[in-house]
Amino acid sequence: MIKKIPLPTVNRLSLYLKCFSELSAGNVEYVSSEQVARQIGLNPAQVRKDLAYFGKFGRRGFGYHVEQLKENISKILGTHKGVRVAVVGTGNLGSALLMYRGFEARGFKVVAGFDVDPDKVGWELDGVKIYDSEDMEKVIKKEKIEILIITTPAAVIPDIFSKLKKTPIKGVLNFAGKHLVSDEDIIIRNVDLALELEQLMFFLTNK
Amino acid sequence: MIKKIPLPTVNRLSLYLKCFSELSAGNVEYVSSEQVARQIGLNPAQVRKDLAYFGKFGRRGFGYHVEQLKENISKILGTHKGVRVAVVGTGNLGSALLMYRGFEARGFKVVAGFDVDPDKVGWELDGVKIYDSEDMEKVIKKEKIEILIITTPAAVIPDIFSKLKKTPIKGVLNFAGKHLVSDEDIIIRNVDLALELEQLMFFLTNK
Repeated sequence: MIKKIPLPTVNRLSLYLKCFSELSAGNVEYVSSEQVARQIGLNPAQVRKDLAYFGKFGRRGFGYHVEQLKENISKILGTHKGVRVAVVGTGNLGSALLMYRGFEARGFKVVAGFDVDPDKVGWELDGVKIYDSEDMEKVIKKEKIEILIITTPAAVIPDIFSKLKKTPIKGVLNFAGKHLVSDEDIIIRNVDLALELEQLMFFLTNK
Repeated sequence: MIKKIPLPTVNRLSLYLKCFSELSAGNVEYVSSEQVARQIGLNPAQVRKDLAYFGKFGRRGFGYHVEQLKENISKILGTHKGVRVAVVGTGNLGSALLMYRGFEARGFKVVAGFDVDPDKVGWELDGVKIYDSEDMEKVIKKEKIEILIITTPAAVIPDIFSKLKKTPIKGVLNFAGKHLVSDEDIIIRNVDLALELEQLMFFLTNK
C-alpha cells in the first residue's frame, strides 16, 4: 500500500494525526507545512518529507488537504475502524486508564476491565464492566477485544501471557513496570512512567 | 563530563538503568553485554556501543560492573540526588500518578498535588497534600519542587504556564492531551496515552 516508513516518521504519525484532527474540528480545509511544523515544533522541511510518505496530498499554493491526510494517516495506523481495548488490573492507574476520556476520539474504546479482586469483579466503572481475570479468554473473544492495557503487578505477568496465548490478542500496552520484549505472537509496547520523568531529567541536567 | 550522547542512546539509558537496578537488587556484581541485551531485547553490539559512552566499566572476561554503571547512569540522568515532583490536576489520572508507587525507587518523590476544586484542596492522598492551584508559586518554592506533572484539561494550560514562569520550574511532564513545545525556560515532555495505543496499532496493522 505504501513505501516503508522509517521509524522516526512512524513516531511522528500520531502527532500529525492529532494536528490534522484539531484543524479538521476547526473546519480548516488546507494547511501549509509551515503551519503544521509550528504547531508540532518541527521544521517545515521535515514535515514535507514525512508527509510525502502518505501520497500526494500537498497542492502547490493550497497546502495539504486536512481531511484526506487525516483519513489516510488513521488508515495507516489502523485506527479508522475503531479498536476495542480492555484494561487488566483496576488499581489506581488501571481505573484511571479505564475511564480515560482521551481514548475514544482517537478510535479506541475501552470495553472491559479485568481484576482478581472479588470486591471489584461484577462492578462497573463509568459504564465499563470489571470481569474476573479467570474469564479473560472468554471475554476477549466475546467482546472482540484487540488490545490489552496491562497495569497489574509485574509478578502476575507470566500468568496473564499464558492466558493470552489462547486468545486472538496481538498487542499489549504494558504499564506493569517490568520491561517486556515482543515475541512472534504478541507485540508489546512498554510505557514506563518513571522513564518519562528520567528522560525529562536528562535534558534538564544536560541542557 | 562525557561525550555527547546520541538521542537513541539517551532513550535507552533508562532501560539500562532499570536493568542494572534489578541486577543490583539481586546482588549481581558483573554482567555481560549478552545478558543485558537479552533482558532488554537489543543486540549485544548495540549494548556495548551504548555503554561505551559512560566510561570504562567493562572488564574483559568479567563483563560490566553493575553498581558502578548504575550509579553513573543515574548521575547522567540527574536522578541520583532525588528529584521533588508535584502533580497539577488531581482527577482520575492525576490521583493515580500522585499515588504511583513506581516513582520513588527511581529517584522521584511526589511531594504535592494542586487542584482548583475546593472540595479537594487541603486533603491528602497517600500522605501527599493537595494545595490550591492559586498557591502554586509559593508551594513550588517552599517544597523545592523541580518537575511538574500536568494532568489538567488543556484549556487551563496557558494559565498554569504563566504561573510557572515566576517559579524555578524547568521541566514539565505533560499529560494534558495537547502537544506542547519546549521554550527557552521550560523543557516539556509530552506523554500522550492515546498515542501509545496508536503506535502499537501501527505495528499490529503493518507487521
